[in-house]
Amino acid sequence: MIEVELKGYANDEIFERVRREFTLVRKEYHEDTYYQHPCRDFSKTDEALRIRLRRFNGHFEAFMTYKGPKLNEESKTREEIEVPLTDPDEHARILEKLGFLEVLTVHKVREKYYVEKGVVITLDEVEDLGKFIEIEALVEEGEEIEGKVKYLKSILERLGVREFERRSYLELILERAGHGEAGRTLRDS
Amino acid sequence: MIEVELKGYANDEIFERVRREFTLVRKEYHEDTYYQHPCRDFSKTDEALRIRLRRFNGHFEAFMTYKGPKLNEESKTREEIEVPLTDPDEHARILEKLGFLEVLTVHKVREKYYVEKGVVITLDEVEDLGKFIEIEALVEEGEEIEGKVKYLKSILERLGVREFERRSYLELILERAGHGEAGRTLRDS
Repeated sequence: MIEVELKGYANDEIFERVRREFTLVRKEYHEDTYYQHPCRDFSKTDEALRIRLRRFNGHFEAFMTYKGPKLNEESKTREEIEVPLTDPDEHARILEKLGFLEVLTVHKVREKYYVEKGVVITLDEVEDLGKFIEIEALVEEGEEIEGKVKYLKSILERLGVREFERRSYLELILERAGHGEAGRTLRDS
Repeated sequence: MIEVELKGYANDEIFERVRREFTLVRKEYHEDTYYQHPCRDFSKTDEALRIRLRRFNGHFEAFMTYKGPKLNEESKTREEIEVPLTDPDEHARILEKLGFLEVLTVHKVREKYYVEKGVVITLDEVEDLGKFIEIEALVEEGEEIEGKVKYLKSILERLGVREFERRSYLELILERAGHGEAGRTLRDS
């Protein structure tokens, strides 16, 4: 399964429009810790390894997620492998023993909205970064991606999104902290 | 917690003596897959990363275990971090994406016997290697290890064990397959 995903910069108006127009699935609190590979520069290979602690409706869950390189120029489409963790602290200890380094922890509040079968919109309020909107659909491997991306983009544009963003929150926060000036120039251009 | 562990070569007589003298806790079937680190030679750093599938009494469990370098000349004492896996196949996929290579899968039948509080004897019938006996105790960090090792060794000797082995089943199988001649010479000396 491939996740086709598109992210844009949002504001209060866009958030309110989504809240009025679509049905809230749930509100989640995320604490995402990203790791650097011991001998491969994930910022160059465009991969990511993350442990996510997720809280919603009184539930608490943890996951480990590997994200492969983006497969598409425009969207954030990439392979994802996600597994539930019963003991995230011990998993983190194993990662550290194997030489993986904790890069950063990203805190965010996420609201998920049902758009139509297989399509979900997410409103993210990210600590230190601000408001974002994501739209996401799952496609089978082999299914046509470009058309799906165009369709998802048109939905975001109708909601008022003018600026899109392919970079992850991790990349954006690292850039803000003074790394990766090249990336920032690209976005601003 | 540190695992103090001593392993010796066994035979039918030693197996029968243990079966008569101690109480069977349970019989397990193990399928252990070992991984090589993408940029660190575990055979040199004396570490190991393993996914174990374990079956007993109709239960099925999976674990990921990191083993640190041995801390003691005589025994197999080392740090261990073990976490349960709910989806071992997906965890294995993530490891492969991160560049970890499957080295080998070791199949064995294990019988565990209760010796006394905190001390367990294990009879292992290892595919392609034969019969082994292990004795194991857990000690708190900081507790004295040498005395414990001597005590465990005396139990194995009383049961008829003459030859001890610090190397793992993985190392022994790899050596049999033609790697690590130095190790074999050491053992035979």
